[in-house]
Amino acid sequence: MIMFQSDYLEGAHPSILKRLVETNDVQRVGYGLDEYSESAKKKIRMAIRDESADIHFISGGTLTNLLVISSALRQYQGVIAPKTGHINVHETGAVEGTGHKVIALEEEDGKINAQQVEEVMEKHLADPSMEHTVQPKMVYISFPTETGTLYSKKELEDLRSVTKKYGLYLFMDGARLGYGLGAENNDLTISDITKLTDVYYIGGTKCGALLGEAVVITNEELKKDFRYNIKNRGAMIAKGSLIGIQFDVLFSDDLYFKITKDAVHKASRIQKAFEDKGIRMFGSSKTNQIFPILSDEEIAKLEKKYIFEEWGKLEGKTIVRFCTSWDTKEENVEMLLNDISSL
Amino acid sequence: MIMFQSDYLEGAHPSILKRLVETNDVQRVGYGLDEYSESAKKKIRMAIRDESADIHFISGGTLTNLLVISSALRQYQGVIAPKTGHINVHETGAVEGTGHKVIALEEEDGKINAQQVEEVMEKHLADPSMEHTVQPKMVYISFPTETGTLYSKKELEDLRSVTKKYGLYLFMDGARLGYGLGAENNDLTISDITKLTDVYYIGGTKCGALLGEAVVITNEELKKDFRYNIKNRGAMIAKGSLIGIQFDVLFSDDLYFKITKDAVHKASRIQKAFEDKGIRMFGSSKTNQIFPILSDEEIAKLEKKYIFEEWGKLEGKTIVRFCTSWDTKEENVEMLLNDISSL
Amino acid sequence: MIMFQSDYLEGAHPSILKRLVETNDVQRVGYGLDEYSESAKKKIRMAIRDESADIHFISGGTLTNLLVISSALRQYQGVIAPKTGHINVHETGAVEGTGHKVIALEEEDGKINAQQVEEVMEKHLADPSMEHTVQPKMVYISFPTETGTLYSKKELEDLRSVTKKYGLYLFMDGARLGYGLGAENNDLTISDITKLTDVYYIGGTKCGALLGEAVVITNEELKKDFRYNIKNRGAMIAKGSLIGIQFDVLFSDDLYFKITKDAVHKASRIQKAFEDKGIRMFGSSKTNQIFPILSDEEIAKLEKKYIFEEWGKLEGKTIVRFCTSWDTKEENVEMLLNDISSL
Amino acid sequence: MIMFQSDYLEGAHPSILKRLVETNDVQRVGYGLDEYSESAKKKIRMAIRDESADIHFISGGTLTNLLVISSALRQYQGVIAPKTGHINVHETGAVEGTGHKVIALEEEDGKINAQQVEEVMEKHLADPSMEHTVQPKMVYISFPTETGTLYSKKELEDLRSVTKKYGLYLFMDGARLGYGLGAENNDLTISDITKLTDVYYIGGTKCGALLGEAVVITNEELKKDFRYNIKNRGAMIAKGSLIGIQFDVLFSDDLYFKITKDAVHKASRIQKAFEDKGIRMFGSSKTNQIFPILSDEEIAKLEKKYIFEEWGKLEGKTIVRFCTSWDTKEENVEMLLNDISSL
Repeated sequence: MIMFQSDYLEGAHPSILKRLVETNDVQRVGYGLDEYSESAKKKIRMAIRDESADIHFISGGTLTNLLVISSALRQYQGVIAPKTGHINVHETGAVEGTGHKVIALEEEDGKINAQQVEEVMEKHLADPSMEHTVQPKMVYISFPTETGTLYSKKELEDLRSVTKKYGLYLFMDGARLGYGLGAENNDLTISDITKLTDVYYIGGTKCGALLGEAVVITNEELKKDFRYNIKNRGAMIAKGSLIGIQFDVLFSDDLYFKITKDAVHKASRIQKAFEDKGIRMFGSSKTNQIFPILSDEEIAKLEKKYIFEEWGKLEGKTIVRFCTSWDTKEENVEMLLNDISSL
Repeated sequence: MIMFQSDYLEGAHPSILKRLVETNDVQRVGYGLDEYSESAKKKIRMAIRDESADIHFISGGTLTNLLVISSALRQYQGVIAPKTGHINVHETGAVEGTGHKVIALEEEDGKINAQQVEEVMEKHLADPSMEHTVQPKMVYISFPTETGTLYSKKELEDLRSVTKKYGLYLFMDGARLGYGLGAENNDLTISDITKLTDVYYIGGTKCGALLGEAVVITNEELKKDFRYNIKNRGAMIAKGSLIGIQFDVLFSDDLYFKITKDAVHKASRIQKAFEDKGIRMFGSSKTNQIFPILSDEEIAKLEKKYIFEEWGKLEGKTIVRFCTSWDTKEENVEMLLNDISSL
Repeated sequence: MIMFQSDYLEGAHPSILKRLVETNDVQRVGYGLDEYSESAKKKIRMAIRDESADIHFISGGTLTNLLVISSALRQYQGVIAPKTGHINVHETGAVEGTGHKVIALEEEDGKINAQQVEEVMEKHLADPSMEHTVQPKMVYISFPTETGTLYSKKELEDLRSVTKKYGLYLFMDGARLGYGLGAENNDLTISDITKLTDVYYIGGTKCGALLGEAVVITNEELKKDFRYNIKNRGAMIAKGSLIGIQFDVLFSDDLYFKITKDAVHKASRIQKAFEDKGIRMFGSSKTNQIFPILSDEEIAKLEKKYIFEEWGKLEGKTIVRFCTSWDTKEENVEMLLNDISSL
Repeated sequence: MIMFQSDYLEGAHPSILKRLVETNDVQRVGYGLDEYSESAKKKIRMAIRDESADIHFISGGTLTNLLVISSALRQYQGVIAPKTGHINVHETGAVEGTGHKVIALEEEDGKINAQQVEEVMEKHLADPSMEHTVQPKMVYISFPTETGTLYSKKELEDLRSVTKKYGLYLFMDGARLGYGLGAENNDLTISDITKLTDVYYIGGTKCGALLGEAVVITNEELKKDFRYNIKNRGAMIAKGSLIGIQFDVLFSDDLYFKITKDAVHKASRIQKAFEDKGIRMFGSSKTNQIFPILSDEEIAKLEKKYIFEEWGKLEGKTIVRFCTSWDTKEENVEMLLNDISSL
């Protein structure tokens, strides 16, 4: 069986493993203060064009989300997020577990917009008993979203304006950042994202690394004492170089951007194959996740050779998800394209 | 410079890296439900002689400690620990961060004893206003302790008796478990530890792995819904096989036990060299950490070639720590032995 | 100006003040272990026809809600509630502040139903990755609801069945319990409620007391160590008799039921006056809160003499809230009836 | 039996009850925004000579402690306190329950000093891995302490200097503030305390009120959004005027200071009676709590008529506590004086 159900099905990009083997016996200090981590941070700062950004390496997405959010908020503050946001639906209440309400807004194509944030804030500020409700202090978005869609530069600028206006932090979950940046319909650079957010992360786990996310903090308020927060949440890795080395490799020769762009291209070919057969997509994703809406018969045929995820039901059909990744094999893509065209 | 300041200075045992490379392209499911993790669990269950133990792989020690403790306790309950216990002094309040008091007891040679636990419980139960104080519900110990010392079988049995008597959970932090089991003065087997605790962990990070601890739960009450707890604390690794593969290698052909025993042997030789020069040790450690008490002059000489940790002051001298690990090179040990004998 | 904007505008029922004065100099032990509190508990147990119920007196509603919910749930569990539930909208994230997600469901006339709970549970249990989402463990409802509506006996029985089926606790917020029990359209007795929930509370603050809520716990699992929880959350009153005395008076000679019923009757007369003028109500409340939908002109007229709360907008008009209480004066009601009829 | 075991054995000062009765029917807004609360705040600001202090009324001491501390600290920060401090021993881990470690220091006569705080801070700041330990951010002291002792003006000034030097908040638990201010050996005014702390509270529950503590915040950083914190912790009383009225009475005509001073005078007479019989005291308390060290025989005699608290053992004898309060009857004091002299 060939798996297309997620983008974390294999190990790491071979260059990463090679580098881990090469450096294995070199002694280094712990807790992320080693020179590999330093080198990785420098390369990332170069790539994002911000020399003063603070960068920290964390082992996974949920841990990063709960860490960043709980570090930024006071006890009575909450985080605005789309209803379908990962923190709201797939993290077993990890954010609430740190004491904070997720203020979930209706989403459209996976996204929330500046107007919605404005309305939440105006309603809160107009309430004479405002202290009886959670004070919104952060906006959480994902890029790409859970359904693979992207914020345009204009949409992100608008969110930036509204969050500045109301003193909110803007936090972007970039677990699949590379796949967003590499999409045809994307008009944001990583440098834009750096400028337009207070904190975001560059996903490694789903983009070629064994594990690891690189948190980028640009807002001075959020930089202070962040390593205390990391340790307090159990997120400080003793052998921090493990993640540092991986990001050092990923940010050498644009590897991060190349391998994710390649994955997106493969997903586009699969999407086109479905569309050529008249099969519609759910949502507007042009990233590494696509969501064809299939009949039971089509599913039955494809299930013989491929594993993919059921996502939901729609008008008697089933939305499924196919993911590609930095490690999706060309021969598997071609086989799938053939099988789709024979549906 | 040659580093002896900790046991997490290098990467992983070569067999682990080799296996990561071999399996890199094999597709597998996420979140620790893959077959490598299953295989590792089977091998561990065999090694500890408990077929019904639940085993979970977590990325690091502090995260494991806060996860295990907060999963076991209700909001008003606390955990008894030695004053020098890692959770009490080196985790930035991670356990308190989950809402629980660490009830710190005076330690002797790094350890607490059954009598002390009995006294705490009798005092609590005799208090007519007992609900005004934290209810002790767990005892936390480390094996080896922070200063490398070991609980004897008798001491652990006594702790087991007293915790059973008062309905407390007994939790052993085994971040350096291998080095304890491999010590000359140890009389506990891993199977004894499995029987005599409710939950403990087998440290990987400091014992040959890139990262990872294997939590072993034997008490049925603590098994329930543990994966929800893992996810809620951000401790579920997407590519769970990363840790599974490592423990699978470590528990093949007794590798875990062999490499840690070898490290302990190296430490013993270094200890003997110090003692041969009339240098006393702080505490009774016979594991991979030794604590010679050095004069400023001795330190100055050794510092020229070696990095080691300052641990404390004692009667005008300095307690320092030398650690060996699975990756300590024989040539470095021999050079150090020579340099010690020339002090 | 005459205030109708809430049911906590005045002090306490005169019998309560009289009793506080009478007993003022009698020495008594602290923390709710005094004989007045004991007497009050006995009377409540008699009234609810459950001799084995545990009863605790807490100072206010939000503190009671966060205390009961956090005592019942484990870290990874959440509480199902109507979107408009007090815990979801008017407690500044107090429940999330203790680490738990509020799983908010669409409400109808202020209520949720058994079918919705069933759907949530079936969806959760059918999810192969269920541990990635919050585990529902409690259902929170209010009686009366935020908009004064009531669960019928049938509706509560259905909720009881579904919560039993799925091992959920059923918790009823009874901040205004008396006003619900005293409504014409109510078919539940306090004894029914005792049988059909795991824990609920009898509101004192809004029903004649200076402050205080009586938590009634019938589920054995929830009884254990509850006083530890009370103290841990800062909810243990040193002079516990203060609340005990008040409930002792309220549960003598059915005072609690009489004064709340009287308030409901006054609200009904006001409601009828509005309806006689062709003014519609928002929702189906027959309790002490009514929600007429007024024009700007009507509001302008009434605002000259009365204070009432704006509740929301509807089709160009404004929903407002008028509350009566145990202390609403007959002359004020009559004046208001006149002024309504002259609108 | 005559009770001397605590200072919260009776109701409230008669003037308070009188005022509650007088105002009972006056309608007022909720949540502490009423005019009685405003009046009380004005009077307190006058008494403490600080027009810009923020004042909030909270129902009890533990709730105040957890609220103030958790509002001031970030997740990774802790609070320094004497080992015998109420938050460390008698609050069921309420502070840890909000996520913060209590850093307990050895006390002398119930107190900690500036030198100790200096040492803690220097040790923390000198630690190259400081982020692995809790960051101290607040110092908690009580006035009087748990054993009735007092900080002198010099001692408090020194604590103020050291906390300013290291950027720590200084928080004084004044649950028995009046009894400290009224002691013969006290050299601090309430205005001094206001100037020398960042936040403190004026205890009402133990000093004449039915319940309630007045939190006084002078540090601007701590003032921000405090009402959100109050609500989030369940500490906002719907009928806030209940506490407002009481403090309004207590701060009229110096009532608060008079009644507590009178209680202290009674305690002094009892202390003198014991000392006249050659009975030693534990600690140096000159406030309303005294701690005679009694033989079993002496206890047996006194227990026939009086209830008092056993506090600890010392050299074969028992330390007991006698408390007086605003409501201790002169005839009871005289009877006790007689009985002591007949020991």
